[in-house]
Amino acid sequence: MAIGRPPAATGPPLRIVPLGGVGEIGKNMMVFEYGEDIVVIDCGLMFPDEEMFGIDLVVPDVTYLRERRDKVKAFLITHAHEDHVGGLPYVLPDFPGVPVYASTLARGLLGNKIKEHKLTENPILPFEAGQSIQIGPFEATAFRIGHSIPDAMGIVLRTPLGAIVHTGDFKFDHTPVDGKLSDFAILAKLGEEGVLCLLSDSTRAESPGYTPSERTVGDAFREIMEPLQGRVIVATFASNIARVQQVFDAAETFGRKVAVVGRSMEQNARVAAELGYLRFPSTGMVPKEKIRETPEGELVIATTGAQGEPMAGLARMANRDHRFVEIGPGDTVIVSASAIPGNEEYVARTIDNLFKNGANVFYDAVKRAHVSGHASQEELKLMLGMTKPRHFIPIHGEFRMLVQHGRLAALTGVPAQNIFIIENGQPIEFQADGTARRAAPVPAGYVFVDGLSVGEVGDIVLRDRRALANDGMFIVVVTVDKQTGNIVGQPEIVTRGFVAGLEDPVIGGAVERITAAIANPGDHTSEIALLKEQIKEGLSRYLYEQTKRRPMVFPVVVEI
Amino acid sequence: MAIGRPPAATGPPLRIVPLGGVGEIGKNMMVFEYGEDIVVIDCGLMFPDEEMFGIDLVVPDVTYLRERRDKVKAFLITHAHEDHVGGLPYVLPDFPGVPVYASTLARGLLGNKIKEHKLTENPILPFEAGQSIQIGPFEATAFRIGHSIPDAMGIVLRTPLGAIVHTGDFKFDHTPVDGKLSDFAILAKLGEEGVLCLLSDSTRAESPGYTPSERTVGDAFREIMEPLQGRVIVATFASNIARVQQVFDAAETFGRKVAVVGRSMEQNARVAAELGYLRFPSTGMVPKEKIRETPEGELVIATTGAQGEPMAGLARMANRDHRFVEIGPGDTVIVSASAIPGNEEYVARTIDNLFKNGANVFYDAVKRAHVSGHASQEELKLMLGMTKPRHFIPIHGEFRMLVQHGRLAALTGVPAQNIFIIENGQPIEFQADGTARRAAPVPAGYVFVDGLSVGEVGDIVLRDRRALANDGMFIVVVTVDKQTGNIVGQPEIVTRGFVAGLEDPVIGGAVERITAAIANPGDHTSEIALLKEQIKEGLSRYLYEQTKRRPMVFPVVVEI
Repeated sequence: MAIGRPPAATGPPLRIVPLGGVGEIGKNMMVFEYGEDIVVIDCGLMFPDEEMFGIDLVVPDVTYLRERRDKVKAFLITHAHEDHVGGLPYVLPDFPGVPVYASTLARGLLGNKIKEHKLTENPILPFEAGQSIQIGPFEATAFRIGHSIPDAMGIVLRTPLGAIVHTGDFKFDHTPVDGKLSDFAILAKLGEEGVLCLLSDSTRAESPGYTPSERTVGDAFREIMEPLQGRVIVATFASNIARVQQVFDAAETFGRKVAVVGRSMEQNARVAAELGYLRFPSTGMVPKEKIRETPEGELVIATTGAQGEPMAGLARMANRDHRFVEIGPGDTVIVSASAIPGNEEYVARTIDNLFKNGANVFYDAVKRAHVSGHASQEELKLMLGMTKPRHFIPIHGEFRMLVQHGRLAALTGVPAQNIFIIENGQPIEFQADGTARRAAPVPAGYVFVDGLSVGEVGDIVLRDRRALANDGMFIVVVTVDKQTGNIVGQPEIVTRGFVAGLEDPVIGGAVERITAAIANPGDHTSEIALLKEQIKEGLSRYLYEQTKRRPMVFPVVVEI
Repeated sequence: MAIGRPPAATGPPLRIVPLGGVGEIGKNMMVFEYGEDIVVIDCGLMFPDEEMFGIDLVVPDVTYLRERRDKVKAFLITHAHEDHVGGLPYVLPDFPGVPVYASTLARGLLGNKIKEHKLTENPILPFEAGQSIQIGPFEATAFRIGHSIPDAMGIVLRTPLGAIVHTGDFKFDHTPVDGKLSDFAILAKLGEEGVLCLLSDSTRAESPGYTPSERTVGDAFREIMEPLQGRVIVATFASNIARVQQVFDAAETFGRKVAVVGRSMEQNARVAAELGYLRFPSTGMVPKEKIRETPEGELVIATTGAQGEPMAGLARMANRDHRFVEIGPGDTVIVSASAIPGNEEYVARTIDNLFKNGANVFYDAVKRAHVSGHASQEELKLMLGMTKPRHFIPIHGEFRMLVQHGRLAALTGVPAQNIFIIENGQPIEFQADGTARRAAPVPAGYVFVDGLSVGEVGDIVLRDRRALANDGMFIVVVTVDKQTGNIVGQPEIVTRGFVAGLEDPVIGGAVERITAAIANPGDHTSEIALLKEQIKEGLSRYLYEQTKRRPMVFPVVVEI
């Protein structure tokens, strides 16, 4: 090493590689690589969009990590929402022994997942706000930040090239329900010391102003509940423990007991209460089996399904398909959430069904009983202003949100060439001299979870499902005499998703068409493959002419 | 007739039968029936939701009208939006000779539809704002009302039992772009004379306050365009002639020419200009073939696809898949629309793609360049206050919107028992004494248009498409010796949308399972139908155990 040069100036580059969460909402996952060491922040999942037919979940493609398996030293978790931890069960099996660091509540909530998926090969270690851990060349420090789950954290990674700040999901809530404020001190101190790069949550980069405090939701609950005589049902996110706490508190204010209904909310509430993150109301809890016996004016039900998910509590109660609760006249429902993009129609349908059942419903458009857990523009500028980063990578958001967040960064003084609006798989590489540039893209896509399979269902399967979904399928079985090439008996037809039944006139025409195709074979049709091809083409064309629809056609030729 | 009794008190009831547009957005259609006469207001379509796989359009089920074919005397059209006229091509063939009454612009825009679908059996007759026509016992008077298309009208039906006011789609715009104000005089006069029933647009019954004037959009266009040097692309609805006019006017202000791109917008603009509803800019029009030759700073492009529709102008320009326009750095795009429920993801994806191409985009969240064509709560109350209806039926809206509109009506003094929140197929019957009640429901559902078929694709076909979309299909063909019952050769398997290929290990297991099923037949399996059933059950169970997925299984047994 040349004397007089600072050591870092000759070291390896530092790479930040996004495998999830940039250019999309969900499956957040960010890789930090320096020399022979990699730490990963978060490992989330996302829910399929409407074009991913039959897919259960989407998790990140971690080819990049698998190819560097020995480098991977730790997974750090910012908080236990599914879009930050839901990918772990599908990713950890490839990284046995690599520890997962998470806060107390996150470890508690992860516990069920670990048990369910039998993930015993990875130690789950404590990592609390204020704590620092050394992982190879990285010193990781967790700091408290506000979000719609307790114990949410941001993470500072001190590296040989400088400090990197990853905000996690955040907002600045000055009156949080649990009284625990965001750690402004560390952010301001980092700003003084110098931040090489800030990675900050862009979910609400399009929203001007400040996001209101979670506490305002409790006020709304009380305003709604005060005049009511009947039962109250509040639907919200199972993981939003602060929101559940406020349901409990509002119920207590009006002398009501609380029942918690919905598997994920029951589990989360139990864990959170055990760990001291949730306080039951002094008025008491009602087991769901006793809901029918409890006088309506003395009860608040907290439940899941605020996104209208067809199988969750609220939708089933609205459809009168729930074992313990049927919602009807006299009931008041509070939908304490706003629809996540893609869920709008589900939410709308559920609200409509509740009204049809005679319930009164308070929802977004008529009474605000929800606030976001994400920072709006003024908070994002505050984060930028406190940390004063040299470089900026907006994360957690669709592409246009990253663009808007980048504009905010420019407004606060980050030089335009140091702002990187990137998509998954686009690494940013920091040189020893502190400059940064885009490096060659790496694999980073969707891995589909469908039933038991992880990654086996790919684009071809989805393309076929799309074709089947659009126009259905058409199987034709013909038996051909090997000697004469003549058709034996009638072609057999099976069709689904195309016409209502085999008596449809188009079917009769199809049989004629097939018979004619075989009766008049062209050259080479002695080959079964060619005969099949001929039937398929002729039949597809005929069906399209007749119906302007294109079912998938499957010819089966049996030679006897 | 008994002397001294008013004649109406012994007459037949008046029925209002909604066949579309209540409890949903779209396919608006309302039937008015008195004795032997029926008039129908509007006949719209709606676009399929995400669960209607492969469906092109949804039109009203008019069984009720078909069963009373001889009573149907006229279709009255409030305005030429697809959700009010798009069902005509599919409904009119059942009612040859029945006239369609519409305003000048509506007739102009209907012209193309008439030609395309060869609808020559129905006269299309003039019905202009201010005009009255007598149809049997009904006197129909059209009145001008503001909406996002010129020549929009409400309709008063004077009946033997009293006046019925149908607002059509409306807002009160005091500074409309075409200068033509809503007809307050007739509404106020009706309020004085007495209105038996008001049917009023509920689309924005959830929105407090007033909807801003269409003119404010022109101001936004000018603010955005003023500093720009590059090309400007404005995407909006093809039918919103006032909006297109404002694009023309803003372009003119800054000395830019205009090109119109997109089949429906080109057609509509031509018709509207011919009929005097659209004024071309003095700066000139550019044919789309000449767009590439026009200096970027001198051009505004008006186009379709503001809903992100994958095949429309904007999405194709964003995907660099358009013949005449590719959007890239230096271009500014204005999305002058808000996403219709269900289209949010399309719109978001299109905006993201535009940003990825390097364009700047002004959209809802960052700059308002759109206003609704529908009345907000204060306007709805104004409508109620002016017409002072005895009964009220909120129309044009999802169920929760109808509920909110009903609450507004109650606030303005309509007695609660005279407010009817109903769904399609729920008739309201007015007796000769002026009282109203719900009558027995009538058929009113969805008719699916899919390719050439109208109404042939039903729930069973959709259910099968859904199953195919979720987990694909699995065909197994076995050849069995008729004499011995033994399988001949290997079972043949064809699968799509299930596993990636036939080399998947689950396929090998399936073949073994089938062979075993046939080798060990239970009782009765000499019957082919039972053998098939056995293969299907065994195989479905095996595939589910192996994959936790349920492809549709089709066994084909060929006996030789």
